[in-house]
Amino acid sequence: MSVFTPVTEEQARSWLKNYTLGQLTKLEGISDGIENTNFFLSTTHGEYVLTLFEKLSIAELPFYIQLMAHLAHRGIPCPLPIEKIDGKHLSELNGKPACIVTKLTGKPVRDPTSAHCGEVGEMLAEMHLAGTSYPARMENWRGKPWWKKFVPEVLPHLPADEAKLITDELAFHTAQDYFSLPQGIIHGDLFRDNVLFTGDRIGGVIDFYFACNEALLFDVAITLNDWCVNADATLDKERASSFITAYHAVRPLTDIERRAWPAILRAAAFRSWLGRLGYTYFPQPGEITHTKDHGHFRRLLEHYIHNTNEIKL
Amino acid sequence: MSVFTPVTEEQARSWLKNYTLGQLTKLEGISDGIENTNFFLSTTHGEYVLTLFEKLSIAELPFYIQLMAHLAHRGIPCPLPIEKIDGKHLSELNGKPACIVTKLTGKPVRDPTSAHCGEVGEMLAEMHLAGTSYPARMENWRGKPWWKKFVPEVLPHLPADEAKLITDELAFHTAQDYFSLPQGIIHGDLFRDNVLFTGDRIGGVIDFYFACNEALLFDVAITLNDWCVNADATLDKERASSFITAYHAVRPLTDIERRAWPAILRAAAFRSWLGRLGYTYFPQPGEITHTKDHGHFRRLLEHYIHNTNEIKL
Repeated sequence: MSVFTPVTEEQARSWLKNYTLGQLTKLEGISDGIENTNFFLSTTHGEYVLTLFEKLSIAELPFYIQLMAHLAHRGIPCPLPIEKIDGKHLSELNGKPACIVTKLTGKPVRDPTSAHCGEVGEMLAEMHLAGTSYPARMENWRGKPWWKKFVPEVLPHLPADEAKLITDELAFHTAQDYFSLPQGIIHGDLFRDNVLFTGDRIGGVIDFYFACNEALLFDVAITLNDWCVNADATLDKERASSFITAYHAVRPLTDIERRAWPAILRAAAFRSWLGRLGYTYFPQPGEITHTKDHGHFRRLLEHYIHNTNEIKL
Repeated sequence: MSVFTPVTEEQARSWLKNYTLGQLTKLEGISDGIENTNFFLSTTHGEYVLTLFEKLSIAELPFYIQLMAHLAHRGIPCPLPIEKIDGKHLSELNGKPACIVTKLTGKPVRDPTSAHCGEVGEMLAEMHLAGTSYPARMENWRGKPWWKKFVPEVLPHLPADEAKLITDELAFHTAQDYFSLPQGIIHGDLFRDNVLFTGDRIGGVIDFYFACNEALLFDVAITLNDWCVNADATLDKERASSFITAYHAVRPLTDIERRAWPAILRAAAFRSWLGRLGYTYFPQPGEITHTKDHGHFRRLLEHYIHNTNEIKL
């Protein structure tokens, strides 16, 4: 289903001559991909993932590929993009930009414990530190400018109470100054799907295609909103505390970040709600619309609006 | 014994603040080191090796460190040097240049089969290909210029027959033109100790401190002289054939290399013999003199001189 561009073993064998990865031993399509075509590719050297990019162009990709390399070189367990003999990461395979990255170990955790949340908090802070020396820049194409463009488009689809909430919330965030918060490279999508655990340890952090320059605290909030929130859109205080404490131990949060925290938590819930509304009302061609409940993030947003006391840092 | 410079857990914890490698969980001295102090260092991210360089200076090290990074980026299973937050690999620890690299899996194989030798041949050829784009240069400080300097120094220590053999052999190689052979980056010391196997697969290639620019065929000969030679200093033809066939499949040997092969095999045996004589008669302070039989490589050299028919490519 999600192998949009097929690759035969013969094609892979021939393409592997550009690399020093040994002989092909296995090639197997991965059905999970939403936006790219992925294969598990094993060679006599080890296990890798072959990705053919269906939407991003060769010009757009270096930011993400080099970021993964930058972080992997600093010990962040993210995929290491493999260089061809000529030193480049990317080349065309069956008409699509393609690259090979190392395969990471572990599996996503669906019901995280406080211990898992602590590991994620520590790793997120380390990614933020490791990213400080990354030289390239990428704007957040799901940031405020997109909210301002998207809200008028989605309003006609919404019931009156949701339309009012969304309009008020956009006005609230437009008035906030998030640029004075410490900025850096954020992962931008560190949901449970994108962290692989082996037991209690993180074996992998994947899917960097939302990464961008942004307030670091925004990444903290996006991540907490997935890892430390219950199915009924309320905060699990114990998991949240474990997550924040572990983050803070690696990159201490500043006073300005503490003051901005309630607004940033709302902003992160708001962004995720808008994203879900986008998938629901404006699905892209070829995009697999997971039946994700866009109401969850609306309820989380309302929870934050009405429970400001419990979300202090 | 071989932990020349001790490091406490507290010192390691403090030094790790320069990295994004998580929390220290284990620090354990490794007794194998001859020239450096090595520790197994585990963190919440994974397992690493911490090396304090006892002889090489910070100015000399980048060639080797960057070479390992260059090869690891191309999928060669060699140690990946970890970058600090500031992007550098090296810094001082207890007065010595120090770095952290990934720990590789597997163990050396003492009695290799033809299958092992085939894996080593393939991997060596891939290292040679992967090295073609490496930009830095390092002269072979165990090459011809060193032979010419060392032979007069060691001659007074040797019995007459060995002195004559060594003098004749030096004259023979001095007359050869090895510069017209394909050149590149060689490992220079791919003995059985420096390849880690997991089952029949290579999990690691280590110890790059003899790497340099040299005729690639010289590396083929050095490696074959260890992996495919019997304890009685005769060639195991089956292992040698497996090794060469696998190498040739990745980097086809040229006509000029085929013609030079008998001389290069002798040159490699000669170099190893001289190296062993150096360890025996001129041990360095702090060097652990393994009681390696320097006569082995003299016998191998004589075997090659008297059996030219069996060493054709």
